[in-house]
Amino acid sequence: MTEQAHDEVASPAIILVRPQLGENIGTTARAMANFGLQELRLVAPRDGWPNPGVTKAASGADDVVNGATVFADTASAIADLHFLAATTARPRDMAKPVLAPEELASEFKNRLSAGERCGVLFGREQSGLDNDDVALADAIVMAPVNPQFASLNLAQAVLLIAYEWQKVRADQSLGRKTEFDGLVSTGPQHRKSRPAVKSELIGFFEQLERELDLSGFLRPPEKRPVMVRNIRNMFERMGATEQEVRTLRGIVASLTRAHRSS
Amino acid sequence: MTEQAHDEVASPAIILVRPQLGENIGTTARAMANFGLQELRLVAPRDGWPNPGVTKAASGADDVVNGATVFADTASAIADLHFLAATTARPRDMAKPVLAPEELASEFKNRLSAGERCGVLFGREQSGLDNDDVALADAIVMAPVNPQFASLNLAQAVLLIAYEWQKVRADQSLGRKTEFDGLVSTGPQHRKSRPAVKSELIGFFEQLERELDLSGFLRPPEKRPVMVRNIRNMFERMGATEQEVRTLRGIVASLTRAHRSS
Repeated sequence: MTEQAHDEVASPAIILVRPQLGENIGTTARAMANFGLQELRLVAPRDGWPNPGVTKAASGADDVVNGATVFADTASAIADLHFLAATTARPRDMAKPVLAPEELASEFKNRLSAGERCGVLFGREQSGLDNDDVALADAIVMAPVNPQFASLNLAQAVLLIAYEWQKVRADQSLGRKTEFDGLVSTGPQHRKSRPAVKSELIGFFEQLERELDLSGFLRPPEKRPVMVRNIRNMFERMGATEQEVRTLRGIVASLTRAHRSS
Repeated sequence: MTEQAHDEVASPAIILVRPQLGENIGTTARAMANFGLQELRLVAPRDGWPNPGVTKAASGADDVVNGATVFADTASAIADLHFLAATTARPRDMAKPVLAPEELASEFKNRLSAGERCGVLFGREQSGLDNDDVALADAIVMAPVNPQFASLNLAQAVLLIAYEWQKVRADQSLGRKTEFDGLVSTGPQHRKSRPAVKSELIGFFEQLERELDLSGFLRPPEKRPVMVRNIRNMFERMGATEQEVRTLRGIVASLTRAHRSS
């Protein structure tokens, strides 16, 4: 285990047991590459190996396809692993922990960090894993599928595991992002132009209100204060940059000046 | 909105813009059915509709396929929605909030609970969404893909959204709060007037752009597309209510009409 203990790219292995369609192996490889998984193991693929149909379906995930290893049976494919999960579409009476994909990802993270080797088994397209294969696993993983339509495509099932793994790994490597990072970008701070200062925004408001007074929009007079407030609130919410405030001023000037001169 | 306020099965719509392969439409329908999404909208599918190849790839998700609706353009496909997300593989300089799939799912939950209609746009397989389509969205959603291999298959991208939606919905049914409830405050649901639907916002955009064409603001012609996009993005960010869109239309009409008659 020590040889992997400091390997920062250690990731779980994806193990397809008796996959039938080369296309599904290829789309599995693509899904793995999308979320940074590299190690693909194949147990007795029906159409042999290599399989030219796989490469096309992999859409460029050639490293994963070319690095795949083939085994005669499940036992040999998992021989070196310390922790193994089995995917199933329905709970089986196996007295094993049943994990959601994100729980499995956290389990992987903890074990990989401790130097363990991990993997997850996926069954053949039509019938899933045999009970004998599931019995080899430490845990069962189930996605929260619609019970009326529970059969996930093979590559889709792999994708969910890879995706949750990537989410956990990203948390790990970045020192945990806050939940609201996405929202930060609603403010103007990520844009190229600097955020507008209030004096710029107010300059725009005054220009707009002057023109709206001229055009008769802000009537009757007793309603003017609330109308002005509502309009200012709308534009405040925009979170405009300095450049955008200039655009807004240009729009108002253009709409009014053009007609004035005509 | 009241007719949806108590509809417990309200879910976001999946909108595929100019999908190319019928197979991908079918696998998208399957991914939707796996996680309980029903509403599929198609904008100008390349090979027409209905398409026999779709049903085979859907592997039994016939309700989704048969219920799909087809639109000539993106604007008509999103006309009735209050909140729209756009999927992109890379950040675009659009000054919109960028959400992870689980954040989008929480946003959907909050807005659907408030009676809003929601959807998410997916672009064509080869090239993704045009910037003009992205400009119509309130937020961008990006999965945490491997930057070296960022191109998700269409159905895989749909799967991640459907999966996160299902996770949030399951939480909801258990009465559990998610971490992302704070996002509610970005939405217009606290205001008195109902949120604007996209057709109303687009109507305002078209009025404004018509007037800005007349006034000469949108010149030179080669810069017009990017100027229009920037202006639309600014106003999208406002998160306007229906009442506010009418105010904006009134402002533009007033600024132009007043000077025309003088």
